[in-house]
Amino acid sequence: MADSNVFRATTTAPVNIAVIKYWGKRDATLNLPTNSSLSVTLSQKSLRTVTTASCSPNYPAADGDTLTLNGKPENINASKRTLACLSSLRALRKELESADPSLPKLSSYPLRVVSENNFPTAAGLASSAAGFAALVRAIADLYELPQSPTDLSKIARQGSGSACRSLQGGYVAWRAGTKEDGSDSVAEEIAPASHWPEMRALILVVSAEKKDVPSTTGMQTTVHTSPLFATRAEHIVPKRMIGMEEAITKRDFAAFADLTMRDSNNFHACCLDSEPPIFYLNDVSRAAIRLVNDINRVAGKVVAAYTFDAGPNAVIYYLDEVSEIVGGTFKAILGGELEGWEGPFGDRLKSISAGVDLNSLDSKAIEVLKTGISRVILTGVGEGPEKIDTHLVSEKGDILSL
Amino acid sequence: MADSNVFRATTTAPVNIAVIKYWGKRDATLNLPTNSSLSVTLSQKSLRTVTTASCSPNYPAADGDTLTLNGKPENINASKRTLACLSSLRALRKELESADPSLPKLSSYPLRVVSENNFPTAAGLASSAAGFAALVRAIADLYELPQSPTDLSKIARQGSGSACRSLQGGYVAWRAGTKEDGSDSVAEEIAPASHWPEMRALILVVSAEKKDVPSTTGMQTTVHTSPLFATRAEHIVPKRMIGMEEAITKRDFAAFADLTMRDSNNFHACCLDSEPPIFYLNDVSRAAIRLVNDINRVAGKVVAAYTFDAGPNAVIYYLDEVSEIVGGTFKAILGGELEGWEGPFGDRLKSISAGVDLNSLDSKAIEVLKTGISRVILTGVGEGPEKIDTHLVSEKGDILSL
Repeated sequence: MADSNVFRATTTAPVNIAVIKYWGKRDATLNLPTNSSLSVTLSQKSLRTVTTASCSPNYPAADGDTLTLNGKPENINASKRTLACLSSLRALRKELESADPSLPKLSSYPLRVVSENNFPTAAGLASSAAGFAALVRAIADLYELPQSPTDLSKIARQGSGSACRSLQGGYVAWRAGTKEDGSDSVAEEIAPASHWPEMRALILVVSAEKKDVPSTTGMQTTVHTSPLFATRAEHIVPKRMIGMEEAITKRDFAAFADLTMRDSNNFHACCLDSEPPIFYLNDVSRAAIRLVNDINRVAGKVVAAYTFDAGPNAVIYYLDEVSEIVGGTFKAILGGELEGWEGPFGDRLKSISAGVDLNSLDSKAIEVLKTGISRVILTGVGEGPEKIDTHLVSEKGDILSL
Repeated sequence: MADSNVFRATTTAPVNIAVIKYWGKRDATLNLPTNSSLSVTLSQKSLRTVTTASCSPNYPAADGDTLTLNGKPENINASKRTLACLSSLRALRKELESADPSLPKLSSYPLRVVSENNFPTAAGLASSAAGFAALVRAIADLYELPQSPTDLSKIARQGSGSACRSLQGGYVAWRAGTKEDGSDSVAEEIAPASHWPEMRALILVVSAEKKDVPSTTGMQTTVHTSPLFATRAEHIVPKRMIGMEEAITKRDFAAFADLTMRDSNNFHACCLDSEPPIFYLNDVSRAAIRLVNDINRVAGKVVAAYTFDAGPNAVIYYLDEVSEIVGGTFKAILGGELEGWEGPFGDRLKSISAGVDLNSLDSKAIEVLKTGISRVILTGVGEGPEKIDTHLVSEKGDILSL
């Protein structure tokens, strides 16, 4: 590397989908949340961001730090959130350099950051969590920072709240914290993916619809106008965090599922209680909820749990052992020709048709789902960011593509 | 009447649409609510139930009391709620007869009750409120009971909670009360229709869809499973009742509308927060909400308020003076050929097209509304039950039809 004075580090980072939702900021600049949240990190075999952070004394200082996202140069100065992350990471590097003058002065070199997602932005998946997690992890690696993922989560959080949960794999809690400076608002791994590796996530991507309200705006509308929201933040979520951690520790799927569904509904209820009301669920989302409930009823136990972020896409959690009942049934409803059934988790459903008799499910919901879902993503719980050697910046500093 | 020993009394009763919603019972038998509610009584020129109560010593005792609804004999013994009303009314009559032995012993004669709605049940309008109000009022008139509408509201309430609000015209509050026997859970007129006669109500009837959950079941699901509901019942509604009464007293439409919309959303938020979640709003309802918000935005002030009961139909309140902006705009969106624009309130919109430029409204919402609304009902605030002489039972006791 030192040949051309270009320093590089590359990392991949995962998407995460919360089962106890983050909604509402108590500090909008520091991205401090009104309540704790908890998520499942999804496998990077399906969805991931790859980011190379590089710096060099040879990069033109006049260009400053640069960022290329999915092949497009971004105006880094337009994003206060990105600037906040870079500045925090650089400060930590400076501390190292001050303590050990033999270290190269990377903190003084311009950064060249290149990032690519392996999933379509059009799928409506929150890519910012994976994006900021990869950015922070890659620069931390480039700077050889000794900070733990939990320490780094404070920095990623300033990029995008939920990004702090993408710095670790498995089951991750983001503690809201109480301090004004946010120093105790950090993400912690509750359990690694290996603790409960059987968790699957089937994402039903709803045919393109303009997003109702961006989540940052929506959150603040809810905090300021919903008379129900304080009850959620102060009373409901704290109890559910305890219950959810216990469910994960015990690998109790029924409890996990029950809390997941209730919390998704509770979050969307607070959206609806806002003025003006915010709707992320549409008739297709409702149909997915109905079918999950029907499948659980027919199965005679809770085998599937739906959850919805700030959009109509359903994420359905289930355990590998009930792949036939849950994944197979949705595959039979939606048709195997739909994009997304293949891939790293597809083998399990290859020869499977409907796990439950489709006649025992709500026929109208089946119709609505069939016409309303444009693709699926079949994935599962996975690991946190990984360091890799396939860089998006060449040894000479040129921007590459995957 | 006495010729044939058939005693008769006939009344009409109105529908009411709440602006502070009733949702949740603290006593399911007595229909005691968890919170107070407030409604606008709608004009009987548009929607009404006509009920004749009759009794006679000549009616066969073996038949017992009988009830005919819209031409169909009902099994009165299958409805505990109807039996409860009849028994309470009979007891009051007995008191009169005991005090004055010269009175005919009507309480000992079998009742023959005949009732007809002038609106299609298929429209999805809660007909039970008008139905039980008419039943109670007609029998009270037959029995010549001295009780006030507020006293009688305790009886109607046992038939159907919201029926207690249909015993009076104009703007009616149902006080939840605190007593276990329900003696203080009564309806009161806040203001007569003449206080604010300009109030209009445009009902957008959504194309037939199976009702998600009957309201009686839904209420109890919410009370037992929604962790947000107690906040609504104990803290939010009591404040809103005060605000709404003030808005009505002052004829302050902006305040009336703001509370109406917030309370509708709050009620539906609690439905969504239930387990399993209850959805009454669908994509068509969402489109109506969007368009009301857009019209208010374009108008530069709050001229319209939406509210939704336990179903997808939108009820849009506005004042006659903005008929063009609100009613006219919806008429332009939906087309004048749709059923329901004619009728007692139709003249005001006869020559009116769009009050606001349709291009300034959400085009997708317009499309969804156009295809999703099957008819409208254009009405306004109106009077309480009225005694009439057109009976549904002949002098000889035969059942007639309107």
